[in-house]
Amino acid sequence: MDLAAKVLKGDVRTAARLITLLEDESPQAIGEIEKLYTHTGQAFIIGVTGAPGVGKSTLVDNLIGAFRKQNMTVGVIAIDPTSALTGGALLGDRIRMQRHAADAAVFIRSLATRGWSGGLAKAAIGAVHVMDAMGKDIIFLETVGSGQVEIDIVKAADTTLLVLAPGSGDEIQTMKAGILESADVIAINKADTEGADRLLSEIESMFSMKALNSNDRIPPVVLTEAVNDKGTDELASALREHRDYLKSSGGLPLRRRARAKLELQEIVEGHIKDMLYNLDGSDFLEKLIDELETGKTSPHRAALEIISRLAGTINQGKGKAKNGF
Amino acid sequence: MDLAAKVLKGDVRTAARLITLLEDESPQAIGEIEKLYTHTGQAFIIGVTGAPGVGKSTLVDNLIGAFRKQNMTVGVIAIDPTSALTGGALLGDRIRMQRHAADAAVFIRSLATRGWSGGLAKAAIGAVHVMDAMGKDIIFLETVGSGQVEIDIVKAADTTLLVLAPGSGDEIQTMKAGILESADVIAINKADTEGADRLLSEIESMFSMKALNSNDRIPPVVLTEAVNDKGTDELASALREHRDYLKSSGGLPLRRRARAKLELQEIVEGHIKDMLYNLDGSDFLEKLIDELETGKTSPHRAALEIISRLAGTINQGKGKAKNGF
Repeated sequence: MDLAAKVLKGDVRTAARLITLLEDESPQAIGEIEKLYTHTGQAFIIGVTGAPGVGKSTLVDNLIGAFRKQNMTVGVIAIDPTSALTGGALLGDRIRMQRHAADAAVFIRSLATRGWSGGLAKAAIGAVHVMDAMGKDIIFLETVGSGQVEIDIVKAADTTLLVLAPGSGDEIQTMKAGILESADVIAINKADTEGADRLLSEIESMFSMKALNSNDRIPPVVLTEAVNDKGTDELASALREHRDYLKSSGGLPLRRRARAKLELQEIVEGHIKDMLYNLDGSDFLEKLIDELETGKTSPHRAALEIISRLAGTINQGKGKAKNGF
Repeated sequence: MDLAAKVLKGDVRTAARLITLLEDESPQAIGEIEKLYTHTGQAFIIGVTGAPGVGKSTLVDNLIGAFRKQNMTVGVIAIDPTSALTGGALLGDRIRMQRHAADAAVFIRSLATRGWSGGLAKAAIGAVHVMDAMGKDIIFLETVGSGQVEIDIVKAADTTLLVLAPGSGDEIQTMKAGILESADVIAINKADTEGADRLLSEIESMFSMKALNSNDRIPPVVLTEAVNDKGTDELASALREHRDYLKSSGGLPLRRRARAKLELQEIVEGHIKDMLYNLDGSDFLEKLIDELETGKTSPHRAALEIISRLAGTINQGKGKAKNGF
């Protein structure tokens, strides 16, 4: 069955099914994404990142409203940590952004981090392709994760919105290197609570110091109160202005090339990991570990043997694209 | 200069320097670890994991005291998130566990997660080899990270200690899949604060349900008050008992084989990532991305071309082990 054709017609159920296949790293998904790929490139992709509890989901909910008022269609890909107890997404699609549940122009999908296999950025970019091919004008890529996943999401977006809030601990202190510097727009949410002024002046002084040393664009900081839907229009404007800036400055194609590189890298690493996984339990690997235990080889010599074996497998398998190679 | 020989004589400054080389992924470190490798395998490796703020460092500080009372030598490898502002480890060696700073039998080293390159587990296992070769009896591998790093640390230890505390949010709800199930010993720290009883009964009921469905060992739960040094001896006993259990049940060699596999996997993936990184900016990669942009290829076809190229590079480079290949 041709899932891609149905997705191109805007069939939401088929799109949801295809995203599930992506999560499961199903080989069928690869072929369908291939068919969709030439129909992508129109959507504006906004990455939303920030610590848990700062109000990212509520802000995105408000932003959906703002973009819908302008008749833009919206997709949301929310990356959720998997709970040990439920085995599924901690914040499922159902409890997310219920306000827009009845709006056919809004498509919201959670991606769970199953087994921490590291294929999440790949699945997320695949889901972006699906929503892009469906014709969504705006796609939010929202992560409640941290570390590598956030960094990857930042790389995969056209515009990165960093959400901060006062009182969520030593916010800036613990901010991961790279996230703050990669922010294109900053929202200080819960702006009516204590500490918001201090957070604002900290951020402003950080960036004014940075401005002395470089000609980089300083990200605008927007104060929001997501629960009261305050600051939403200002935030939506700041995001649109960044998109216009990207277009006028020639930055957009560079970001899209970076996204393409990330996707290629993820696909390549995924293949290599599959091949390593397939070695697990093999006589070849067990023998190497025996040799490690008895001191006959060392980890680095053993690793070189594995790489050499992988290269052999790749060369043997050339052309067999169906099952990965 | 032969760093390995000095490490084997117990030279702390050389050991610290070698661990810095590991962090920097220096090629020199590889050769030195190779020389140390046959002198490893004697240490008992305890992974310590849990959410930020539960009191892991203070507990480890107490445990060092307990093991030192039995004349055991101790190494600590603490994995810290890198701060955006300082560029270094958030909790440096200096402010960690100062109580044992003057004790030559205790060697404490922080590893920073530089650039999130993913090589952290590799550097951590390398640091374990260094401390093992130095003759440390007990090595703590402590992580304040989350997600993949915690999972990898769990895999790399002989015994995994999970530290929980009441009041640190919906602790169990947000517990990552796999961490709770991989715990060999559980400490409920801050046992004198509100909610400790409830946390204890939640954990006990979870594991009693699990016990109905399997013959797996149920991890002992020890109540501790790290700031008052209460429960330390009980926790040290529980850790020793698990070591004895591993030895008598035949589980220890299995864990060590799993650690060897993880190390091999990390080294192989590190090499592949280096090769991908070396492609960055190359005409080959830029041309592929041009073809992606113009619809002449698709991400999966392009990824297969990259893999084929990597295989070619590997085959060309066979035998050149010095610079990786």
